[in-house]
Amino acid sequence: MFPIKTGMLGVAGLMLAFALSAFNVEPAQAQSNVAQRHRVVIQVSDGDPAKWNLALNNAKNLQADLGAANVDIEIVAYGPGIGMLKLDSAVAPRIDEATRAGVKIVACENTMNGQKLARADMLDGIGYVGAGVVELMSRQQQGWAYLRP
Amino acid sequence: MFPIKTGMLGVAGLMLAFALSAFNVEPAQAQSNVAQRHRVVIQVSDGDPAKWNLALNNAKNLQADLGAANVDIEIVAYGPGIGMLKLDSAVAPRIDEATRAGVKIVACENTMNGQKLARADMLDGIGYVGAGVVELMSRQQQGWAYLRP
Amino acid sequence: MFPIKTGMLGVAGLMLAFALSAFNVEPAQAQSNVAQRHRVVIQVSDGDPAKWNLALNNAKNLQADLGAANVDIEIVAYGPGIGMLKLDSAVAPRIDEATRAGVKIVACENTMNGQKLARADMLDGIGYVGAGVVELMSRQQQGWAYLRP
Repeated sequence: MFPIKTGMLGVAGLMLAFALSAFNVEPAQAQSNVAQRHRVVIQVSDGDPAKWNLALNNAKNLQADLGAANVDIEIVAYGPGIGMLKLDSAVAPRIDEATRAGVKIVACENTMNGQKLARADMLDGIGYVGAGVVELMSRQQQGWAYLRP
Repeated sequence: MFPIKTGMLGVAGLMLAFALSAFNVEPAQAQSNVAQRHRVVIQVSDGDPAKWNLALNNAKNLQADLGAANVDIEIVAYGPGIGMLKLDSAVAPRIDEATRAGVKIVACENTMNGQKLARADMLDGIGYVGAGVVELMSRQQQGWAYLRP
Repeated sequence: MFPIKTGMLGVAGLMLAFALSAFNVEPAQAQSNVAQRHRVVIQVSDGDPAKWNLALNNAKNLQADLGAANVDIEIVAYGPGIGMLKLDSAVAPRIDEATRAGVKIVACENTMNGQKLARADMLDGIGYVGAGVVELMSRQQQGWAYLRP
């Protein structure tokens, strides 16, 4: 009977492996707080440099407290917040500093189109998304935390 | 040995099907961004028409980018934001346009009671929730993304 | 053949049990809205007493609507919002009332350090977290809803 049992184990094992991979079950530790990768999307939608500085402070504090390598941070600027990322931004040096430190900063192209802004009008080092609101929604649906300074 | 193997496959398969259905494991595609239904609750709690317009712009952009049929959008007005939904609202025509476009817009009855507002004081086409904050919390717990313009 | 089948069932069953426990699959009811415990973290980052009152109103309404015993509420004050928790806060009596009612209210020590504030400068009954933004992110990753009045 043993050769049969072993064969059955192999078959059942393959089926389990297939079922679990097909159904995308994540290991327990991936769901616990300790082992979970920290990911946070920060919204900037106010045309207020004080808010821009607060958002950049938040990103800096997250990196300082968790270690820059342990947290994914994305700042999404849209609507009146788009001014944060224009060439004449009051926080231009801090944008450069943040992107160099690994913070992803993206501008909303919907907003840019509405304000007749081209990429040549924007700061270096930033990224672009079609719609800031879609990005903010999608990131949350991917499990990112949301922060609106 | 083959008849036995086939029998084992059937038994193990049934057990797997039972176990996975009992434990409500969702297929991988239901958790990916592409196949997941887009749902977002938008908070309006400022007494500021500029914020009301921004919230309505956000809803419009979400529908434009994702297709109105592919995204559930609910705007929750409460506290100082309740003015957005009063008969004399500065954005009254846009509220009508948004609800016709399939955006759900609800007023907080707690706030209305506090401000002695009846449904007759409010715009047509909107809905009502007992407490705006409970709605915002519940939607997030149901998996909706949160947006606060 | 039956003794073999039974043996196989046992083996496959053990494998299933092991696989499912190792992968931390939660029962369906733990994911439904009814059985889920209500938990909400409220951000206070504005230096504006009107916002402080709104946050406290939100907490009060959540407790009134859901029952204080059925909802965990944590207010996190940081950045310009730290003034809400200083001894001279415009809402000091309401902070005392809220903490007595079971609302957890915490101050960001990063912000306190930046503003040279010691615990002796802060109201009684509150708690402290190293970084407000980390707390807001962690709570969301633990499944708490987020509210920013």
